[in-house]
Amino acid sequence: VNFVELIARKRDGLALEPGEIAAFVEAAVNGDAGDEQLAALLMAICLRGASPRETQLLTEAMRDSGERWRLAEVVPAVVDKHSTGGVGDTVSIIFAPLMASCGVPVAMMAGAGLGHTQGTLDKLDAIPGFTPVRERADALARLEECGACLAAQGEHIAPADRKLYALRDITATVPSLPLIVSSIMSKKLAVGAGRLILDVKAGSGAFCKTGAEARALAVELVRVAESAGVAVRALITDMAEPLGAHLGCANEVRAALDVLDGGGSGRLRELTIALAAEALSLAGRSVAQAREELTAAIASGQARARFDAIVRAHGGDPDPDLLPRARKTMTVTGGRAGFVQRIDGEALGWVAVGLGAGRRRSGDQVDHGAGITVHVQVGDRVEVGSPLATLELGTATPDERMVADRTVAAFGIADRPPTDRPLILSRLGGSG
Amino acid sequence: VNFVELIARKRDGLALEPGEIAAFVEAAVNGDAGDEQLAALLMAICLRGASPRETQLLTEAMRDSGERWRLAEVVPAVVDKHSTGGVGDTVSIIFAPLMASCGVPVAMMAGAGLGHTQGTLDKLDAIPGFTPVRERADALARLEECGACLAAQGEHIAPADRKLYALRDITATVPSLPLIVSSIMSKKLAVGAGRLILDVKAGSGAFCKTGAEARALAVELVRVAESAGVAVRALITDMAEPLGAHLGCANEVRAALDVLDGGGSGRLRELTIALAAEALSLAGRSVAQAREELTAAIASGQARARFDAIVRAHGGDPDPDLLPRARKTMTVTGGRAGFVQRIDGEALGWVAVGLGAGRRRSGDQVDHGAGITVHVQVGDRVEVGSPLATLELGTATPDERMVADRTVAAFGIADRPPTDRPLILSRLGGSG
Repeated sequence: VNFVELIARKRDGLALEPGEIAAFVEAAVNGDAGDEQLAALLMAICLRGASPRETQLLTEAMRDSGERWRLAEVVPAVVDKHSTGGVGDTVSIIFAPLMASCGVPVAMMAGAGLGHTQGTLDKLDAIPGFTPVRERADALARLEECGACLAAQGEHIAPADRKLYALRDITATVPSLPLIVSSIMSKKLAVGAGRLILDVKAGSGAFCKTGAEARALAVELVRVAESAGVAVRALITDMAEPLGAHLGCANEVRAALDVLDGGGSGRLRELTIALAAEALSLAGRSVAQAREELTAAIASGQARARFDAIVRAHGGDPDPDLLPRARKTMTVTGGRAGFVQRIDGEALGWVAVGLGAGRRRSGDQVDHGAGITVHVQVGDRVEVGSPLATLELGTATPDERMVADRTVAAFGIADRPPTDRPLILSRLGGSG
Repeated sequence: VNFVELIARKRDGLALEPGEIAAFVEAAVNGDAGDEQLAALLMAICLRGASPRETQLLTEAMRDSGERWRLAEVVPAVVDKHSTGGVGDTVSIIFAPLMASCGVPVAMMAGAGLGHTQGTLDKLDAIPGFTPVRERADALARLEECGACLAAQGEHIAPADRKLYALRDITATVPSLPLIVSSIMSKKLAVGAGRLILDVKAGSGAFCKTGAEARALAVELVRVAESAGVAVRALITDMAEPLGAHLGCANEVRAALDVLDGGGSGRLRELTIALAAEALSLAGRSVAQAREELTAAIASGQARARFDAIVRAHGGDPDPDLLPRARKTMTVTGGRAGFVQRIDGEALGWVAVGLGAGRRRSGDQVDHGAGITVHVQVGDRVEVGSPLATLELGTATPDERMVADRTVAAFGIADRPPTDRPLILSRLGGSG
């Protein structure tokens, strides 16, 4: 394969052949193609797109660039869950013990956060001693022990994705549907759960700013999963405001515990139940059965007990008092009375990053104790001086006035209450 | 300047700001932007294009990335000539002594060949001892001594172009109008002749396959030159068949001498006179005066004498018997009677490269003795067994049967004579 000719074909809008896609992915890993050639091809894909077949082939080639765990061959019922990333979205940490307590094993490969949302891997890292698995044998052992395995993507899973993602990050080639789909799905397929639940976010706090963008992404993810023989359900969900009231690593673990204990933010709980019900329906339950089973698992304390078991099985201590705390807190209050019209999740996410709760660039240290607690929801009535949010400061020492101003600016307050917006916008996959 | 944001702007089809273009060109030279970032931006420019203003700014930034010779400040009448490259196009080697013998100084920066056309630098290299100038002081000294300087692009002229061109070559980003224009013009402007003659080729043997493509390129080249204060004339000329009867380095020097001696291929002579007449019109002559003066310079032997003087001034020996010769020749004959309908210049150019007369890739050795002599022109009547071309083999030992077959295939012979096609398609610049 001549890489210059291959790049030229995509530049001219022609479809790449299976052999060309395989050669390109192999060359990305073994260095046969230079970074400048990979970058040029990524930009050409960004601007020319890729056909459904090319996306499928690219995903499979990336999956095959490293280890394949094929977990479903040993644990057929195992389910995986993926979110495209939202502010205050700590669903995964609730989902795993909740499903496991209903008898459905869960395997998830968690990633580190970058930008205005936190990664599940960083949140788990706030739990003292918690060690995500990195090898297939350990994943199977954890599934056996506690019904869930939480893994970190090591060098051996989809190395082509690691290579290409690092290049995309510095060459402005992240926003490309085929590249996003192949990046997400290559890792899912390499882990090899036979069932998959997708949460595709739409809104100002998400990667997809509109419902139409989210739908296009969801359609492609579902198509690629189904073509690879995975049973899949996707929900397109609202991310116009933060999902939960808590941002930051330790904060989001506490928020997850609140829901497992039967309380917590209504929206966070609602979405977790909805996603878990989809997973139970893949395991054969009716929707009514599923909701009843999930509610009972929380009410009985079994879901919370399973959380503790999962944390211990991964070497961690589930005592919530051991989670890192803020060094100092600062509560921000509103300057006018009215109704909360909007809460800009992306803006709050970036404030949290500024407090140390996330990463501006890959490799940055995360402060697990830093974060934000939001005191109001969209639709709430507030007065002058009502507390809007509490900033939890860690080791970083930002300009306090500036972060307070930016926090207040994230809240839109108006005279009239906002129109209601549903949390779950639509559903894809299977018969749905 | 954040390079990821800069690339993203071009990816999204937005125009780059002057400061961004300057920063990008500077970063290309000093390494502040990685090759993968430059490659992604080049592909984005390839697919999104650039505005006239962006092209202008890019050209000027590339010009300013290295030395500026500003030759016109010392020699105001100096004229530069550029061809976009054609098969058998040895006009430059005739143009320089012809103009100089008419009292108009010529400065040209010659490039090495790549692909199916030979570079002037390689042809000059066939002359024993010939050394192109690389420094401004030497260029001015040669102009003073013999009225012409033939320079090679060194490290110090438009280094941003060297860097970007090397990247474009391996990332399939060569065919982009703004990138081609800025590459050509940055070097012209860095040398700094105040007058410029452009020969933009159109046809199967040229980079621009159609007249419309050639016209678009010529329009941009003229616009950028005029915006930079250069007096410019461009001819769009036919490159459907080889310009001269000779391909290969020593061969093309001999072909140039034939024209300077008053003979030579009609088309090669016709185009040289036309381009030289444009240059003389920039120097104030009428078209009729110019043609008379040029014809006289050849007839009197002054042009040929000036060739010898220019070669000597550049350290070379002008004795044509010292030019390299082929090791072996092989004449290819036609298999049918009829009229020569077409001669595929690109195909013959690649045959010549196969004989060692050119470079497949940058860095390949060129065999100065290898080449092709074409015995017929489009429109000629041929019989079965008429000699079509003689292959001049050098040190390379290609499959003789294969190269003979490919040579025969380059000649289209039909029952009827072809319709006449003009050599000069149109003229741009000034009042024209």
